[in-house]
Amino acid sequence: MATASPTATSSVTLQRRSWLERLWTTIADRGSAYADVPSSAVPPLDRARQLATALLGEKGEASGAAIARELQAVVKELEGADRVAFYSYLASGFLPDEKRLREAATAYLADANAETATQLADASEPPRQELLRRMNMSPGGTASLMAMRKELLGKLNEAPELKSLDSDLRHLFGSWFNRGFLQIRRIDWQTPAAVLEKIITYEAVHEIQGWEDLRRRLAPDRRCFGFFHPALPGEPLIFVEVALTRGLASAVQPLLTRDVPEEQQKADAANADTAIFYSISNCQDGLRGVSFGNFLIKQVVEELKTELPSLRQFSTLSPVPSFRRWLERRVKDHPDADPLTAEEEFALTAVAPTQREEKTGTALLLDLARSDEWWNNPALAEALREPLVRLCAGHLVASGSRSRGGDPVARFHLGNGARLERINWLGNTAPRGFRESFGIMVNYLYDPDSIEANHEVFVRDGYVVRSPAVDMLVAKLNVPDAKMSARGSGKARLLKS
Amino acid sequence: MATASPTATSSVTLQRRSWLERLWTTIADRGSAYADVPSSAVPPLDRARQLATALLGEKGEASGAAIARELQAVVKELEGADRVAFYSYLASGFLPDEKRLREAATAYLADANAETATQLADASEPPRQELLRRMNMSPGGTASLMAMRKELLGKLNEAPELKSLDSDLRHLFGSWFNRGFLQIRRIDWQTPAAVLEKIITYEAVHEIQGWEDLRRRLAPDRRCFGFFHPALPGEPLIFVEVALTRGLASAVQPLLTRDVPEEQQKADAANADTAIFYSISNCQDGLRGVSFGNFLIKQVVEELKTELPSLRQFSTLSPVPSFRRWLERRVKDHPDADPLTAEEEFALTAVAPTQREEKTGTALLLDLARSDEWWNNPALAEALREPLVRLCAGHLVASGSRSRGGDPVARFHLGNGARLERINWLGNTAPRGFRESFGIMVNYLYDPDSIEANHEVFVRDGYVVRSPAVDMLVAKLNVPDAKMSARGSGKARLLKS
Amino acid sequence: MATASPTATSSVTLQRRSWLERLWTTIADRGSAYADVPSSAVPPLDRARQLATALLGEKGEASGAAIARELQAVVKELEGADRVAFYSYLASGFLPDEKRLREAATAYLADANAETATQLADASEPPRQELLRRMNMSPGGTASLMAMRKELLGKLNEAPELKSLDSDLRHLFGSWFNRGFLQIRRIDWQTPAAVLEKIITYEAVHEIQGWEDLRRRLAPDRRCFGFFHPALPGEPLIFVEVALTRGLASAVQPLLTRDVPEEQQKADAANADTAIFYSISNCQDGLRGVSFGNFLIKQVVEELKTELPSLRQFSTLSPVPSFRRWLERRVKDHPDADPLTAEEEFALTAVAPTQREEKTGTALLLDLARSDEWWNNPALAEALREPLVRLCAGHLVASGSRSRGGDPVARFHLGNGARLERINWLGNTAPRGFRESFGIMVNYLYDPDSIEANHEVFVRDGYVVRSPAVDMLVAKLNVPDAKMSARGSGKARLLKS
Amino acid sequence: MATASPTATSSVTLQRRSWLERLWTTIADRGSAYADVPSSAVPPLDRARQLATALLGEKGEASGAAIARELQAVVKELEGADRVAFYSYLASGFLPDEKRLREAATAYLADANAETATQLADASEPPRQELLRRMNMSPGGTASLMAMRKELLGKLNEAPELKSLDSDLRHLFGSWFNRGFLQIRRIDWQTPAAVLEKIITYEAVHEIQGWEDLRRRLAPDRRCFGFFHPALPGEPLIFVEVALTRGLASAVQPLLTRDVPEEQQKADAANADTAIFYSISNCQDGLRGVSFGNFLIKQVVEELKTELPSLRQFSTLSPVPSFRRWLERRVKDHPDADPLTAEEEFALTAVAPTQREEKTGTALLLDLARSDEWWNNPALAEALREPLVRLCAGHLVASGSRSRGGDPVARFHLGNGARLERINWLGNTAPRGFRESFGIMVNYLYDPDSIEANHEVFVRDGYVVRSPAVDMLVAKLNVPDAKMSARGSGKARLLKS
Repeated sequence: MATASPTATSSVTLQRRSWLERLWTTIADRGSAYADVPSSAVPPLDRARQLATALLGEKGEASGAAIARELQAVVKELEGADRVAFYSYLASGFLPDEKRLREAATAYLADANAETATQLADASEPPRQELLRRMNMSPGGTASLMAMRKELLGKLNEAPELKSLDSDLRHLFGSWFNRGFLQIRRIDWQTPAAVLEKIITYEAVHEIQGWEDLRRRLAPDRRCFGFFHPALPGEPLIFVEVALTRGLASAVQPLLTRDVPEEQQKADAANADTAIFYSISNCQDGLRGVSFGNFLIKQVVEELKTELPSLRQFSTLSPVPSFRRWLERRVKDHPDADPLTAEEEFALTAVAPTQREEKTGTALLLDLARSDEWWNNPALAEALREPLVRLCAGHLVASGSRSRGGDPVARFHLGNGARLERINWLGNTAPRGFRESFGIMVNYLYDPDSIEANHEVFVRDGYVVRSPAVDMLVAKLNVPDAKMSARGSGKARLLKS
Repeated sequence: MATASPTATSSVTLQRRSWLERLWTTIADRGSAYADVPSSAVPPLDRARQLATALLGEKGEASGAAIARELQAVVKELEGADRVAFYSYLASGFLPDEKRLREAATAYLADANAETATQLADASEPPRQELLRRMNMSPGGTASLMAMRKELLGKLNEAPELKSLDSDLRHLFGSWFNRGFLQIRRIDWQTPAAVLEKIITYEAVHEIQGWEDLRRRLAPDRRCFGFFHPALPGEPLIFVEVALTRGLASAVQPLLTRDVPEEQQKADAANADTAIFYSISNCQDGLRGVSFGNFLIKQVVEELKTELPSLRQFSTLSPVPSFRRWLERRVKDHPDADPLTAEEEFALTAVAPTQREEKTGTALLLDLARSDEWWNNPALAEALREPLVRLCAGHLVASGSRSRGGDPVARFHLGNGARLERINWLGNTAPRGFRESFGIMVNYLYDPDSIEANHEVFVRDGYVVRSPAVDMLVAKLNVPDAKMSARGSGKARLLKS
Repeated sequence: MATASPTATSSVTLQRRSWLERLWTTIADRGSAYADVPSSAVPPLDRARQLATALLGEKGEASGAAIARELQAVVKELEGADRVAFYSYLASGFLPDEKRLREAATAYLADANAETATQLADASEPPRQELLRRMNMSPGGTASLMAMRKELLGKLNEAPELKSLDSDLRHLFGSWFNRGFLQIRRIDWQTPAAVLEKIITYEAVHEIQGWEDLRRRLAPDRRCFGFFHPALPGEPLIFVEVALTRGLASAVQPLLTRDVPEEQQKADAANADTAIFYSISNCQDGLRGVSFGNFLIKQVVEELKTELPSLRQFSTLSPVPSFRRWLERRVKDHPDADPLTAEEEFALTAVAPTQREEKTGTALLLDLARSDEWWNNPALAEALREPLVRLCAGHLVASGSRSRGGDPVARFHLGNGARLERINWLGNTAPRGFRESFGIMVNYLYDPDSIEANHEVFVRDGYVVRSPAVDMLVAKLNVPDAKMSARGSGKARLLKS
Repeated sequence: MATASPTATSSVTLQRRSWLERLWTTIADRGSAYADVPSSAVPPLDRARQLATALLGEKGEASGAAIARELQAVVKELEGADRVAFYSYLASGFLPDEKRLREAATAYLADANAETATQLADASEPPRQELLRRMNMSPGGTASLMAMRKELLGKLNEAPELKSLDSDLRHLFGSWFNRGFLQIRRIDWQTPAAVLEKIITYEAVHEIQGWEDLRRRLAPDRRCFGFFHPALPGEPLIFVEVALTRGLASAVQPLLTRDVPEEQQKADAANADTAIFYSISNCQDGLRGVSFGNFLIKQVVEELKTELPSLRQFSTLSPVPSFRRWLERRVKDHPDADPLTAEEEFALTAVAPTQREEKTGTALLLDLARSDEWWNNPALAEALREPLVRLCAGHLVASGSRSRGGDPVARFHLGNGARLERINWLGNTAPRGFRESFGIMVNYLYDPDSIEANHEVFVRDGYVVRSPAVDMLVAKLNVPDAKMSARGSGKARLLKS
């Protein structure tokens, strides 16, 4: 172990400094206004632009990775406005060669065939994409590009000219984060704390309160799996939390409670016949639009079947984030569309305070469902239960129609081939649960044997495959065009406003 | 451990079979002629085409990975001609939508700006690229696509219509095998045998004769590093073999000899001041055109500097694969271009058998250098030495000019920023060495401090930076326009035929 | 993925049960009273005894590991009193064969030589040791034996007959946990949470308040290393916490504070010239008497020197757990042994409340040092400082004498070859710090170049090597026999009561 | 990357040198004759003795590990005779304190109880054991002690005074290599070459010819497992080679043949119902007497059952190394003990060349079985088959009797609880197979359900559990006292000479 003297150390620093200066001079040299200016005197935004140009311009790549590293460092230091200016520079510059592209476009228009199409594609690829690929060569490059896109996404409204840069980044990420490159990993108490800390931060569905809370999620009767990419070690892209249960879990709070002794947890795991996916969180804002959830769920089903052959069914316990919002609009726009039964009207009226008696039907229902802490009033809660559950079923079954809208969580799972299995009253009694969906949660069942068929009819026909129990709920919707349950109908327009 | 009965096993097989049949039916169902035909009765080529179409067509991707897996299996089983037919199908189909592309081309021609350029780029991307990305989703997908391209490359001459497929694959590989995703790994005697076996197979410069020979290459005074990609575990992309020496090694056979005791090897490693890169092998034909060598060498230099701070210089010991071929053409085309000195003429004549005496100059030189086992005749070898070394220097120095040609190994290292350091007489006495370059080998020196500058003048001006010793050799080339050594001259056209 | 039916599962359970019954029958069969009794009916203590006997008795070891596993399970289930009874059974039984041992003893007494000594050693080894070695064969055996000893240690006073069992266990552990088998590992934020959780639990010097607090201990300017044994994966045996500082740290609270930004931490690490070992915790009560601390510190010094060549000194910041207790006894037994200077007397009297004025000297000093929160009274604290620091120096310097006594922490570090470097006033302002040593902490310096020499004089002569500063403190002790600072004196009896 | 100057390097060497000199001086200082002699001038044997004494003498262990390291280096350099002299020094010195041991022996003789026994055991433990434990503290210490014992074992005959040292080492190894500390690892083509190379070297039953041959042993239809100890990474202690087959393999050559395509190997593995243990090799001579084989086989059975649930039986294919030697002695000592049947006599006479016709019975049999390449004479081989197989069965069945003797391989497997399943004629047609056992090999069946019972009767009664087929062979042995098959007989003296 050679012991370097302090002098030696500073000479290393010195060397690095002078190397950077030399690199800078090389770059600035090329006819630039800064040829004689030491790099530290050049404004950072100008340096970033010069470095980007140099990075793309380097023919032989002798110092490509070095420039990429330096560019990454400079960009990181840019002030907010400068950074946006740099992004604009990337977005508006680095366009394809106009002459070449014009020729290729003309040739294609004259004779559209495989060859002219290929040439046109080649000519139209913006050099920006190659620049972004080179920026990826530096250590930490991928993370740095993801951070760039995350920032971009927040600026697109005010700076729409950044869209082309966003589009290139999404295109690259789609290629780099191809399913074939992702690694599934189990996350448990043996996982490094640095990763677990991120799980705490990234959990987006049922907040993790701290390390003790996390521990419950990783107990013997729980499982957690995530996708990781080799270029981002220790950084989960998406993860799913699973509870091992007997039968379908209908409420999430019992799954989150911490007061189960470890012996009991082990016994529960051994006796489980069902895996409940109760939370799925995307971790990387910069990867928006690059989808992993479908693959993750299906691969986790395979992992669990191998580890625990006694598992018989795989299901989510999911929120319905759109339900309340949808109901409010529906009552406003179509107050008479969803009549209640006479018994329901009676029950609601019976529990309603006097001042609301002028309202009826779903308007009354909604009014009561907005009242403070109605869940602490058993009679009121009971009166709300049946109509809300039925309306929720109707809303979800309508999520299949091709028009945009419907519940996003429902569209995700149904699009994956899951079946709408059960609507659970008071499935989530946390404030957010009441706020979003009057406490209702839903089970979407992943049955490996029918996933493709379910997916097919959902994508092709917008038909939502569901259990008989849900079918019965839907059948009770007292509307003339309730054809939703008939597969042959092809469409499920019902309830869509 | 539940003991599955034989019946259970076959029912699993049955399930898998019926799953595949079902998948097939789903795919064939879509208006195809094969809707009622069991998959096993459909010709494999048709199945491959149907699966490819289905893979790209799947909107919701419920079974994307499953189809990709099945497609990979079917393609693997195709007979040769069928496989080419399938490749043609991929290459000629999956074109961009003509209407949309025509509109985008027209719009760009009308007003070429950032937005129309982006839209044209989007419209021109062939769906084939997305298809290839989806084929990558199956386990082993990347390796399978690389094998496809390797096969393609051998067919391009006879089937030029495959070029667009090749182009798409190279584009994808360039993105996937970005430097930022590669992992450098040391290869030594602790490396799994499965990897070492590939090193034996892939070594392309100095053949490895078997495990004992390999062992020498991994001894304490040797190093070996390779690049690996996370999607191809255990599969080197490129590797370099390094010898630790005192001073520049001038010949390769001493580096390959096996009779050095281990204690000596350890002592040599401890005393080494030089790292000699004596072999660099690209392993994956399917990645042709995606370049790693430059990065690998530079990263290995960093690794070695950290591990062995006593190293002072980093150099290759490289072949000159083009020298003999070049000399033969040059003597034929320009017999008088490179006069020998009177002493050289005299010496050659003195050792030449009578029947050759009518020849003189380089014609005589070449004649003698082609004679059987001339190296076993000391006088002859001595007479050949000086003129051949000088001519080789001239050939290499000319490799920098911008026109194609020159020595490919020289162009690679000089383009990386290395310096032409030394021409070694009898540096490789293996048959291949004599056959290619009369036994000459060359040191290219990688000096971290001048790599960028060297690279710059090489790429920009075609100037070959070299040591004073090489400069002296070149200066002796008795030709009027020998300006090669003058840096200011900017060009080095000399000796190029 | 054979799917086992529930029936299959229970038949596995059945098989395991019947296997255990069969094993039990085999064991009980041997002339025991329980031959016909099903194992579940036999009292657990009796089962444990039978199994222990069977484990040792098995000649061919066909089911040795199985019996060890079963024994471990049974012992774990024993009630408290039964477990002690089982330990007594182990401790009093399994004695060496009396006849053979008598003969060997007689032979040795008749002619004491190497051969008779060896035979006597063989004959006297209690079969209990072999039994314990066999108990170690089951998975988790080592941990289980350590738990046994931990429990034993708490019972030795009330059940002295267990001492022989304790002695055998310590002997085995001394052999198994030989330095050659220990693995040093760095503990940081990449360490599995399961290990970090144990660090929180085991920290014995400066309590870790939770995960955030732990994080500070593992920040960029901190290091933590532990010893692990291959048979106890994930279970630290001992660990040390290190702070990287500039110069010797004199107080521990600044090292524990959490409000240093990460960038600052990194800068501090880069600038550090000193490594401060501020906490060393033994984790395993069951290993009492098997010492690792010395090795750990020295190996960590080596690790740190390699990682951070800029480190110049290695020192502890240690408590003096015995100081207050010692001072109280000393004042009681020898009230006049350590006179204060006139100035000190005056200063103390000046700050003392009236009611204490009848006391003088160390009695007054102690009285004041016991007063409530004296540290919040600057004048009082200042008056206490000098005499307390000096007395502490004296106490520590006397820790070297051969008699038992002295400060245990001092004896540990001085015995390792460290030097008594500095006495720090108000080095630990936590309640425990005041309670134990009036807030004083000490630096013991590990200077690799003088460790052996320091150790040598400490062990041979009881001489405590110390810095000139400490020497000056000691010289001020106004006692006639203060020869402690004279190395030649050989002894350092001073201050020992 | 501090770049150390050459001066810096040599100053490091200097420091190390002076550190060693200082250590030596410290050691030699203690009243030794070498106090003023530089260590390099002291004869190595003397240095080794001094270091050993110092290592044990160090009270505080400040430099324990350093001395251990130095001692290990010095011992390694000792010449042969000096090394034996050093071993003798260890063996004859480091005896227990005579006075203390005499007192303890006297006390025990006066009153033999648990306490006096414990004290006697303590007093009799030779300090040599502690010395050996301390020698283990240096890196590589365990390997070095194992090498010491390996060398010792070869000297015990000529130097019986070394036995006590050997005994101490075996005792330590028995403790250190306790089953609880061993790790089972699968060995395959992913294993580092450094380990595989050792497998080639250590294979003791069916020689491995090189890397290609090794590859066959690790093919998809083969398994290989070894035990490793954490202190000897990369060093197998014992390993077993397994073939996956359908039904019991009766001959070893088909298992070793290399011309099976990989696809076939995979199919064979998938169809296998039997695991054949065809080779078990102990790797470490220094661990002689410390037994692992039993544990390894049983743990491999568990591993295989988990990986391949379709396996139905586990069996060896083993040599009978003692058979020919036993038969030759038996024919000599008891020529009439084992009469052949009339048909056998007739068949042998018919194929015998004239010169042998004066012999009959087993004498004739043996004579013919010794003839050159008899296996190439079908009639001769056929005539030999039945009587040799039967006699071999008899020999093996007699291996259970308590007296020493019998076949060592049989005793090992039968002692583990295996069943003698089948005698295979021409099971090993390699020269060694014919030389040892006329080509006969044996299957010992490990049936998890009857292992303990088999073991029990073998160890207690010497009864050899065997298949009905073997029983029938034994029944044909025409001798009056053939009670071997009757379990009640308790003994199996038959055929023992």
